[in-house]
Amino acid sequence: MKIIVVGAHGTLGKAICDELSPRHDIVSAGRSKGDVTVDIMSPESIKAMYEKVGSVDAVVCAAGDAYFGRLEELTPEHNEIAVQSKLKGQINLVLIGKDYVNDRGSFTLTTGIIMDDPILGGISSAMAGGAVRAFVQAAAIELPRGIRINDVSPNVLEESMDSYAPFFPGFEPVPAARAAKAYRKSVEGAQTGQTYKVY
Amino acid sequence: MKIIVVGAHGTLGKAICDELSPRHDIVSAGRSKGDVTVDIMSPESIKAMYEKVGSVDAVVCAAGDAYFGRLEELTPEHNEIAVQSKLKGQINLVLIGKDYVNDRGSFTLTTGIIMDDPILGGISSAMAGGAVRAFVQAAAIELPRGIRINDVSPNVLEESMDSYAPFFPGFEPVPAARAAKAYRKSVEGAQTGQTYKVY
Repeated sequence: MKIIVVGAHGTLGKAICDELSPRHDIVSAGRSKGDVTVDIMSPESIKAMYEKVGSVDAVVCAAGDAYFGRLEELTPEHNEIAVQSKLKGQINLVLIGKDYVNDRGSFTLTTGIIMDDPILGGISSAMAGGAVRAFVQAAAIELPRGIRINDVSPNVLEESMDSYAPFFPGFEPVPAARAAKAYRKSVEGAQTGQTYKVY
Repeated sequence: MKIIVVGAHGTLGKAICDELSPRHDIVSAGRSKGDVTVDIMSPESIKAMYEKVGSVDAVVCAAGDAYFGRLEELTPEHNEIAVQSKLKGQINLVLIGKDYVNDRGSFTLTTGIIMDDPILGGISSAMAGGAVRAFVQAAAIELPRGIRINDVSPNVLEESMDSYAPFFPGFEPVPAARAAKAYRKSVEGAQTGQTYKVY
């Protein structure tokens, strides 16, 4: 399969590429590097990416920013980062990309444990995850031509604990390579409308 | 209690006012009528509403638009209606309003059955509902001064079946007065971080 991995150079994206590349042709996409660059906050940039890459069998997104900070100081402007990036960025990859995905292809988006199991400072990211999960479930019943859609909700990654450990007290981190298996399940499996929880 | 009901003149809003008004002072808020007018898509308008009303014990939101239409034609621009209104509109009522709510006060937002049980054409509304639910759960652990937050997820309303029936085949509509009881539970009860499903 020909698979676009958006956010291919992040911790999770790299693990996904490692998991998929032995059997598939990966087109890596990132904000500043990759086979193709894309700013998921811009619908025009997403459209340009698909025009450049052409039709694909699968789109995997492991990108999406969110502001981390306590509710006390969280302004609508802070929250806008997650709305524009983790939420709309991922959703627009589907709304714009559905015409570029081959019959029986798939989309796999990324949510995260804190939409189920909240942490202090994670409101914006949790909100975006909840939006993406509900979108995935609703889009699954409408996508044409056998195209599937799922999301993967990873726990905090072992590789990210250097910076994130204080935010996730008592959470059991998972290796990125383990989370990556859920993306493989989504891409190579046949289910749709699922949230694969890696925790 | 002094309670702002946003969307007080809609089908659901009226039922909420009927349920709460025998025991509370209701400040009705709406886009074009009410004790105070507010455009929830505008943070400035939300701020002006709170400045005008002053401190309150509870904020209830029964407002929030979303585009209904099939995925095939759903563009990022169509989806933006739900992002700006049902999603950010409700969330900004909390982010901006938290300083105007008295100790041990509450917020009650509105989600909807289709975030769990999707219908054709309801993707945008489902997405917004999922975002609000995750936000509520995450905000509940951070709100200061004993302030609580919940959301109510109603089934399609009996009163709305004239226009919505074709979208909800096989759903069991509930009377708005029954959904309104869940808002009372949120306002007068002591729970937080809950989604009250009226189905």
